[in-house]
Amino acid sequence: MYDLLKTIDDPVALRRLERRELSPLADELRAFVLDSVSQTGGHLSSNLGTVELTIALHYVFDTPNDRIVWDVGHQTYPHKILTGRRDKMGTLRQAGGISGFPRRDESEFDTFGTAHSSTSISAALGMAHASKLKGESRYSIAVIGDGAMTAGMAFEALNNGGVADDLPLLVVLNDNDMSISPPVGALNRYLARLMSGRFYAAAKKGVERVLSVAPPMLELARRIEEHAKGMVVPATMFEEFGFNYIGPIDGHDLESLIPTLQNIKGLKGPQFLHVVTRKGQGYKLAEADPVLYHGPSKFNPAEGIKPSKPGGRKTYTQVFGEWLCDAAELDARVVGITPAMREGSGLVEFERRFPNRYHDVGIAEQHAVTFAGGMATEGLKPVVAIYSTFLQRGYDQLIHDIALQNLPVLFAIDRAGLVGADGATHAGAYDIAFLRCIPNMTIMVPADENECRQMLHTGLTIDGPSAVRYPRGAGTGVETVKHLAALPIGKGVVVRESGKPAGHRIAILAFGTMVAPSLDAGIALDATVANMRFVKPVDHELIRQLAQTHDVLVTVEEGCIMGGAGTACVESLLASGLSRPVLQLGLPDQFIDHGDPAKLLSGCGLDASGIAASIRQRFFAKDGAGEKISVAKLVA
Amino acid sequence: MYDLLKTIDDPVALRRLERRELSPLADELRAFVLDSVSQTGGHLSSNLGTVELTIALHYVFDTPNDRIVWDVGHQTYPHKILTGRRDKMGTLRQAGGISGFPRRDESEFDTFGTAHSSTSISAALGMAHASKLKGESRYSIAVIGDGAMTAGMAFEALNNGGVADDLPLLVVLNDNDMSISPPVGALNRYLARLMSGRFYAAAKKGVERVLSVAPPMLELARRIEEHAKGMVVPATMFEEFGFNYIGPIDGHDLESLIPTLQNIKGLKGPQFLHVVTRKGQGYKLAEADPVLYHGPSKFNPAEGIKPSKPGGRKTYTQVFGEWLCDAAELDARVVGITPAMREGSGLVEFERRFPNRYHDVGIAEQHAVTFAGGMATEGLKPVVAIYSTFLQRGYDQLIHDIALQNLPVLFAIDRAGLVGADGATHAGAYDIAFLRCIPNMTIMVPADENECRQMLHTGLTIDGPSAVRYPRGAGTGVETVKHLAALPIGKGVVVRESGKPAGHRIAILAFGTMVAPSLDAGIALDATVANMRFVKPVDHELIRQLAQTHDVLVTVEEGCIMGGAGTACVESLLASGLSRPVLQLGLPDQFIDHGDPAKLLSGCGLDASGIAASIRQRFFAKDGAGEKISVAKLVA
Repeated sequence: MYDLLKTIDDPVALRRLERRELSPLADELRAFVLDSVSQTGGHLSSNLGTVELTIALHYVFDTPNDRIVWDVGHQTYPHKILTGRRDKMGTLRQAGGISGFPRRDESEFDTFGTAHSSTSISAALGMAHASKLKGESRYSIAVIGDGAMTAGMAFEALNNGGVADDLPLLVVLNDNDMSISPPVGALNRYLARLMSGRFYAAAKKGVERVLSVAPPMLELARRIEEHAKGMVVPATMFEEFGFNYIGPIDGHDLESLIPTLQNIKGLKGPQFLHVVTRKGQGYKLAEADPVLYHGPSKFNPAEGIKPSKPGGRKTYTQVFGEWLCDAAELDARVVGITPAMREGSGLVEFERRFPNRYHDVGIAEQHAVTFAGGMATEGLKPVVAIYSTFLQRGYDQLIHDIALQNLPVLFAIDRAGLVGADGATHAGAYDIAFLRCIPNMTIMVPADENECRQMLHTGLTIDGPSAVRYPRGAGTGVETVKHLAALPIGKGVVVRESGKPAGHRIAILAFGTMVAPSLDAGIALDATVANMRFVKPVDHELIRQLAQTHDVLVTVEEGCIMGGAGTACVESLLASGLSRPVLQLGLPDQFIDHGDPAKLLSGCGLDASGIAASIRQRFFAKDGAGEKISVAKLVA
Repeated sequence: MYDLLKTIDDPVALRRLERRELSPLADELRAFVLDSVSQTGGHLSSNLGTVELTIALHYVFDTPNDRIVWDVGHQTYPHKILTGRRDKMGTLRQAGGISGFPRRDESEFDTFGTAHSSTSISAALGMAHASKLKGESRYSIAVIGDGAMTAGMAFEALNNGGVADDLPLLVVLNDNDMSISPPVGALNRYLARLMSGRFYAAAKKGVERVLSVAPPMLELARRIEEHAKGMVVPATMFEEFGFNYIGPIDGHDLESLIPTLQNIKGLKGPQFLHVVTRKGQGYKLAEADPVLYHGPSKFNPAEGIKPSKPGGRKTYTQVFGEWLCDAAELDARVVGITPAMREGSGLVEFERRFPNRYHDVGIAEQHAVTFAGGMATEGLKPVVAIYSTFLQRGYDQLIHDIALQNLPVLFAIDRAGLVGADGATHAGAYDIAFLRCIPNMTIMVPADENECRQMLHTGLTIDGPSAVRYPRGAGTGVETVKHLAALPIGKGVVVRESGKPAGHRIAILAFGTMVAPSLDAGIALDATVANMRFVKPVDHELIRQLAQTHDVLVTVEEGCIMGGAGTACVESLLASGLSRPVLQLGLPDQFIDHGDPAKLLSGCGLDASGIAASIRQRFFAKDGAGEKISVAKLVA
């Protein structure tokens, strides 16, 4: 088993194989991917689709001297396996193990870290310019999916790269007719037309066949054709951008891929190779349902993924999806917008029930936000469902098009905080900090599922921009109340009162997911605990009261400490003329790698025992004087 | 003078005119624009270019029921003049006057506030969907320049809009072959090809002419042509995106514009009208140099703009431009990148001297940042010259592609702080807050021109991402020292020591442009003043020292208070276990309108007297007890 694959510890070994050995190698590699992912969980469909393309690229090009940038990068398992990380695939996406995405610190073959979509052409173009400036000879290659091509950033790079007439730059469009969800938009329709077989080469053949019966007309037809090709319109959109378009070719056929790539190596200027692949290729279940097999947990390949048992705790994503349907039922002005994350954002049911009010705009966060703004000017109530980390892509639009005009757009921010296996690239660590500084924003952080539901409802009642940020996965298990009731804006609630005497009173100001562990820590330390609910406007009155009745304050949030929700409390405290010792707990000033979410949080001290330990360390004497605030520690 | 124009107080009056009156009206409107802008300063070239287009749109469409969204919006002076704001043009861009951009709160004809590029198609598409959902009938129209079309966001919107088969949506491409600077990139080449006359209609005619000598072949040619048009490739890139492409037509010819727009009104589905205009049209000096006349100050139209006298104080932009040339001279790895802001960012000389190391990537901030990242991976030292407000567009790329990989890219952030006449849309108010929360960043804020130069040099020496943020306009007039010396990272300097006794000692921690007025305030109050220099890493040791030797701290910055540089000091203070009363001064939590920059700053209390007044109010007794800290005010 894996007889050939076992011999490939780097692409040099791959390049020593005979051409006829590559097809059996592809079979082994595909089996290895399926075997491996079914044991660790991870991305499957996309990796089954890139087996042959990965082999061909490493076989033809001189990696790592030639640079390959894998767009998004969740399709790089075959690449990782062929570049010396076969034995580490069992550690994939686990703490201390290899990443599910390319990482520069993991391998010299990972030339650029990716995970967010549509960055590859920009990075490869930068590399190509740099190599030219340094006088070094190499190919720079971006491998980008058809979903990722819909993001504006890819077009910005095409626009810049298409005039790089002398650079050895190759863009490989890995066209599998999919984003994570089925693809949308005009580009998708266009690619389908290209792929339908009615593309230029076939048409040309057709013309020649017709004309062969009338030889003298061939010359005229040739002239018309040249006219049509050179002067009127180039063959494809990508040629209009200055690229030499080649394809489409079958991305699972090594006998097409390898000669084509070898030919391209001899060409100058920006090249664009259109490769057609199938997500899930070679594993029937994944071919049939590539969305289900996009990023599965562990499963038995012989049986496939089993439906999850009903009755488990609802995820916040589900709570959002249900709320959006309920809100749409109650108010005809509610519309839902997603940048290509229908499943991930919980919008499947909403699309089914309200197709005219559902908008998947493609991988296009910038457009999604301003599009919502346009709707809001007409009196609609747009809800933009977006991951925290991807909202970073729409930041300027949120400021300039939404907040500055004070338009009522509700941002339902999923995956806020640490996300686990996807790691730092997907963490929602900064949204509180980057949203809080923007005028007109209202920002809410639910402590449980029902509060999330009520906050989403509250957001819809606000005549301006608002955001509700909630984490990946399930909540505390609290029942959601069907009735929707708006929360008082900018008001937190005290969930526990300290019984300690003056001089020893601690108040914990907790946000969102940190309310539950803070409450446990508060019980352990007999501290007061507040669920602050609002980051902006923060509850100034409550902060003042807590400061006046307590000796020290502790803020706790699942977000970066710098500029975050705790800092909002501190700013409020100082503005009201109070000064108290404050301990700020949250995510540290570093990128947090992938791993088990609960362990990552506890590693940051953001579970009940960690919160209590931080408070003890900061405020309590070390001399065994018990759970009391040490005066010595208050006066520095 | 202005006999016709005087009668037009709204588009209804315009629509009452005879067609033959429109051309004289255009002449008056153009003269009025020139007259008005030459007296107030403002955008000129672009407004001279949109006179006929504006008349035609309001004449044919039923505004404001039909919605016009003007991309960027600095070309809307004719629109403002025709929609009831003729008499207010004298107040343009001045405090309390009308804005240089469309604003929803200024007129119902300003359907969407713009100023940042490439938002119009997204907004208009949102409006079109909303109208359909509400069952209202109207056209939604985006007017976008060829420069703005290079931004990815516009393509995201085309991709989404091209499948809106039944929406009355019109995109007008106002193609003047210009960004602010001359345009770059593949799209520009493509538009030039379309405009060169060798576009589809002409080619078709040519084919027919050739074929008329051989009638039986005509049918074949027609079939080939249909093949070529319908099955192989549509006529233009915009048709490939699903739009019905019309044009190019002459955007200064009302006899082309009006019938074409009237025809379009009868068409269903997304329409794309390619209009060719000339920046500066009708004013010879602006036609000859549209860049110079892009946004002039007051001038005499008969004489044109006079060269500014040499010998004035250097702007920070000039300091940056000179430094970049010097740095490039010293280090062959240094490259300069601008997203279409060659003049505004001070890169004219750099391009002239180092053309191979200069990259204008188009209006493409996302791409600019990741492109720099690609270069950095190859050992170059990319410098991204970008306005603070436009860096918001590249935020995700800065986090995900640069900071997460800790790549050495230097961001030279111009227009940080308030910018004056351009107003809230161009203010650089948030960069400190949104950059500070990102791990691996180093952020510097120069107090004067020479410090700016040395900080830029310092940035280049750092093996990771760094930013230097400096304001629009001139500095304090300090000479720049040619020799480049790196500053110690994360270290501020005390520039004045208080002579007050304990109990009355104030320390002002000032950042960047606020160092000079803080020093004046410090002299007035006999306070200690520190030039903090670094926002990140902030000088923890200095903050601790100042807190230990002073009774109260004051932070001052030209940026948002929330999450800003002062907050960095507060977080540091609390983390070191100290608590002191802190007064945080900076930009308030609101969008600041256009006006005179110095007056805007003083309105925010950010001049010497304002800083002193805020300190007195916060810390001094009101009872005439003199310039002393009131104990009563310290203990709340």
